Amino acid sequence: MSSSFEKVDRSLEKNLDSSIEELKRLVAQKSISAQNIGLSECAQLVAGMLEKRGFQVKVNPTAGAPIVTAEKKGKSPKTLLFYDHYDVQPPEPLELWLSEPFKPEIRDGMLFGRGVSDNKGNIVNRLFAIDAILETAGELPCTVKFLIEGEEEVSSANLEDFVSSHTQELAADACIWESGGVDQNDVPTQYLGLRGICYVELEVETASMDVHSGLGGTIFPNAAWRLVWALNSLKNEEEEVLIKGFYDDVLPPSDEDLLFLKALPDTAEEYRTRYGVKEFLLGMRGGMDLNFAEVYKSSCTICGLSSGYQGKGSKTVLPSKASAKIDFRLIPAQKPEKILELLRNHLDAHGFEDITITYLGGESPSKTSASDPFVQLVVNTARDVYGMPMQIVPMSGGSGPNFIVQEALHLPIASLGAGYPGTGAHSPNENIRIADYLKSAKYIVRVLDAFGRE
Amino acid sequence: MSSSFEKVDRSLEKNLDSSIEELKRLVAQKSISAQNIGLSECAQLVAGMLEKRGFQVKVNPTAGAPIVTAEKKGKSPKTLLFYDHYDVQPPEPLELWLSEPFKPEIRDGMLFGRGVSDNKGNIVNRLFAIDAILETAGELPCTVKFLIEGEEEVSSANLEDFVSSHTQELAADACIWESGGVDQNDVPTQYLGLRGICYVELEVETASMDVHSGLGGTIFPNAAWRLVWALNSLKNEEEEVLIKGFYDDVLPPSDEDLLFLKALPDTAEEYRTRYGVKEFLLGMRGGMDLNFAEVYKSSCTICGLSSGYQGKGSKTVLPSKASAKIDFRLIPAQKPEKILELLRNHLDAHGFEDITITYLGGESPSKTSASDPFVQLVVNTARDVYGMPMQIVPMSGGSGPNFIVQEALHLPIASLGAGYPGTGAHSPNENIRIADYLKSAKYIVRVLDAFGRE
Repeated sequence: MSSSFEKVDRSLEKNLDSSIEELKRLVAQKSISAQNIGLSECAQLVAGMLEKRGFQVKVNPTAGAPIVTAEKKGKSPKTLLFYDHYDVQPPEPLELWLSEPFKPEIRDGMLFGRGVSDNKGNIVNRLFAIDAILETAGELPCTVKFLIEGEEEVSSANLEDFVSSHTQELAADACIWESGGVDQNDVPTQYLGLRGICYVELEVETASMDVHSGLGGTIFPNAAWRLVWALNSLKNEEEEVLIKGFYDDVLPPSDEDLLFLKALPDTAEEYRTRYGVKEFLLGMRGGMDLNFAEVYKSSCTICGLSSGYQGKGSKTVLPSKASAKIDFRLIPAQKPEKILELLRNHLDAHGFEDITITYLGGESPSKTSASDPFVQLVVNTARDVYGMPMQIVPMSGGSGPNFIVQEALHLPIASLGAGYPGTGAHSPNENIRIADYLKSAKYIVRVLDAFGRE
Repeated sequence: MSSSFEKVDRSLEKNLDSSIEELKRLVAQKSISAQNIGLSECAQLVAGMLEKRGFQVKVNPTAGAPIVTAEKKGKSPKTLLFYDHYDVQPPEPLELWLSEPFKPEIRDGMLFGRGVSDNKGNIVNRLFAIDAILETAGELPCTVKFLIEGEEEVSSANLEDFVSSHTQELAADACIWESGGVDQNDVPTQYLGLRGICYVELEVETASMDVHSGLGGTIFPNAAWRLVWALNSLKNEEEEVLIKGFYDDVLPPSDEDLLFLKALPDTAEEYRTRYGVKEFLLGMRGGMDLNFAEVYKSSCTICGLSSGYQGKGSKTVLPSKASAKIDFRLIPAQKPEKILELLRNHLDAHGFEDITITYLGGESPSKTSASDPFVQLVVNTARDVYGMPMQIVPMSGGSGPNFIVQEALHLPIASLGAGYPGTGAHSPNENIRIADYLKSAKYIVRVLDAFGRE
């Protein structure tokens, strides 16, 4: 089977460096959705890259960041849709980066920079594969469409409206999702779904100004204490979310999913080494316990806390304001809108009417069945590139707008990307391994080929 | 009685503007002890100001900021010691200042700038009074000494060693403390003591890096949650500190002190208006409840919280680090060293061995009796300047190193300053009213005179 891809693989190997250079240019264009930095500029850059390959491209304005759509006809009547995003996470904390986040740099066979993995690397990687096909075959094996948004890292607030009002334009037979790659043992891994998310900011204000703690400490309400007590009411040390009704809509995992989770390797040692975690929650030691908890539990995670004086040394001040950022990860069939409502009810019922909630975005959980024919095609195609069978993870711990594509376009979704567990997405020193990048492009070539021949 | 001070009062009125100019120059010299900014420079500036008045001055090096001591002989054999400090609180949050904190500015009869009240204003005010006496009488009515440190805002870490090894040099008959002034009704007020303090930073680190919350949220410990649960274990919503033994050494207030507290005016409306506080803790409505709780309760105040992402919008990150700054205000006879030990025991007993404690400084509570003859002199002298009797507050809610002076030098301590409740010490837009500043200097003139004639 390999021989038929010899020419296209040679093309990829020959053009690897120039593709990495193109990726560097895309990474250098800041596009931080949480801070509304550089989004339009980045959308234009992506559009230009697609046009260069002969795609019909639109940069669609939305209430937030523009959405880039593109289409190029291929040989077969079938259509494959790539979902990607050009926005990235904020680079902070900056002091932990070994090189500038927006000045990508190659070290030890890896490319470092914010977004090289999540998800600019995959955008350029798909174009890299398409270039090689066009160079060697002259045309695409199937019609290829792109849906590239700029608000994935802030819960895709404008994607649902856009997709549901452009179903004709986006119509396809299957969808390749943004992320994916290999696990800690370099085994290619297929993620069949994403958890949902409900992201909120809790804020409380107890006075119009900060006050000397010697004056107010025993008579004025303290915003930081109010916040601590409210947070404490949300989750106990046994990791149980205490919000009434929180778990009501949770569905049990299928037997098939449990089998896939059991078949996955033990990640404990990998996590300990990579992240410096000394122990896991609730005494978990690894294996199926970790595999299951990582994706099949809903969560309440404090992502940030802020109040009062945070500088060096001591300042005796009673804070008048305090805030916390929280994400709830959701599993089928929890819905972010309902969680938001339950949270408000909970705070009110526990005497925290003074705590305001700002909804910063939500996404429903969603997954494709492992027995879907498109999933089977993607899974079976991997072996030729990676030299071993692909493993299936029924759901990934992260979140994304896949539910929108699934619900509005009724597409099976499989994931495919150049990532690996050390990729540091959302963290300092985000990186990809260049060898993975090449393999991922070879894999795309094969998936497009198989899909066109089906 | 007033007539005998006519000449010196005229001198003060004539020289008011130039004294304010001198104060502006002192305020413009940053001296932020929490951030170790400008301390030596400020000590030198203060020393020069004292030398200008003919004081014998020493700038004494310590392990931290220099301590300035000064002495000038006077007519009587008695000696009065002024305790002041040249360091100031950090100016943050900068965005709330209407003018630059270190570029003092006069608006509406008030002088704004960091330290104009706490405590640079009082330093220059004492010199202002001394200038007027020297100009009109040619000599001081008693010997005057100064003890001016640069670490008051960070718990005076080096003062105790210095004072106890310089008892001869600092020997005096009485001491005037740094703060003081009038209350919300412009009634002159005598504070006879300060609560103690134990200031700590709690920190926890659960991993070597922040992790994508979609990966770690349900399997890795979360530093922010560890901190929230630990804090929650320290104090309940009824404001009870839950640390075992915390209240063991608390002494009941004397009957005399309770009478003074009852005689104080109701501060509720003043606090509501000035600080925008909607309600007080524990349903207190004002009057004696507030007066008592403000000073005669020990506290556990969160002064700052910090963890994870605090920027705009959402970032889905699991924080590996979290920290809180906490001050415990102490009442007689609680001791900071013991509180620190009890806190460690508490955290360990509640499963929070992972929370580290950094001791950022402590001071014992201390007070002088209202029946002390020096206190009586200071209290009775006020009427001539303020036109009404002075009220006595048996203890102030703030903290300071008065216990060091009291224990090592065995001095009665009274407070005297140019402050008022809107002074905004430790807050943005710190200010003094220039009319108060003039009165305070007139008051010092009279106290020195009475003390010399005793």
